[in-house]
Amino acid sequence: MELTVYSDEHFMKEALKQAQIAFEEGEIPVGAVVVCQKKIIAKAYNQTERLNDVTAHAEMLAITSAANFLGGKYLKGCTLYVTLEPCGMCAGALFWSQVDKIVFALPDEKRGFTTINPQMIHPKTQLMSGLMAAESKKMIDEFFATVRKKN
Amino acid sequence: MELTVYSDEHFMKEALKQAQIAFEEGEIPVGAVVVCQKKIIAKAYNQTERLNDVTAHAEMLAITSAANFLGGKYLKGCTLYVTLEPCGMCAGALFWSQVDKIVFALPDEKRGFTTINPQMIHPKTQLMSGLMAAESKKMIDEFFATVRKKN
Repeated sequence: MELTVYSDEHFMKEALKQAQIAFEEGEIPVGAVVVCQKKIIAKAYNQTERLNDVTAHAEMLAITSAANFLGGKYLKGCTLYVTLEPCGMCAGALFWSQVDKIVFALPDEKRGFTTINPQMIHPKTQLMSGLMAAESKKMIDEFFATVRKKN
Repeated sequence: MELTVYSDEHFMKEALKQAQIAFEEGEIPVGAVVVCQKKIIAKAYNQTERLNDVTAHAEMLAITSAANFLGGKYLKGCTLYVTLEPCGMCAGALFWSQVDKIVFALPDEKRGFTTINPQMIHPKTQLMSGLMAAESKKMIDEFFATVRKKN
């Protein structure tokens, strides 16, 4: 039996690794990767604290990094994997990017873009949600439990 | 009669100057400034072409620049002036920034955030629209007329 390493789970695990780095750096643990032709072309994690910048969400950094790699600003043919449902800002950026597909793990019932307007992303962009949501939730819950203990 | 230089018009003129720079560089002409305690702390213009980055809207660059100036990621006490209605991405970023006030010139009936969800910005953020909209429209119309001639 041949094992494929190119499954959605494989790439979401990579996004979770990015979230883990964020966790270890004291950032809300969200990670993202951009995949093009079955290869990861960008990895990023939330850096709002380190960069002192509300725009430095994992998705935003991943979009910019992927565009740099591709040498063009559109992410046609690419899939973004992210461990938490994108917020309005990130969904807006993903709209402009014309990314083919978005796969997110944990729905964000408070700040996710679907609470603003589920039609925010590009009509041609496929959406898949809930993949490895439990793993993402565990990390985020643990993060906030630690924050609460400190305060 | 004393003339005040701190009017909304004054700051929108500065945002229009930024839009003019974008125009001259072949970018869709949108400019923004962030004002804190009656002083401009950040200026930016759309650079999506130059930076090959869909996230490089004037507002995004202005938010990042203002946060750098302030040394903190929130823009409480600040006003953002921008020559075109913010899109969903920028409105989402402005939500996170907790900016006090947004003043935009020209409504964007196609991509403005109010077409997505007028409640996208922070409930505490004041909104003013239409200031010097004609000046902004003139520049944008001229830009697209030039683009059409070239193609």
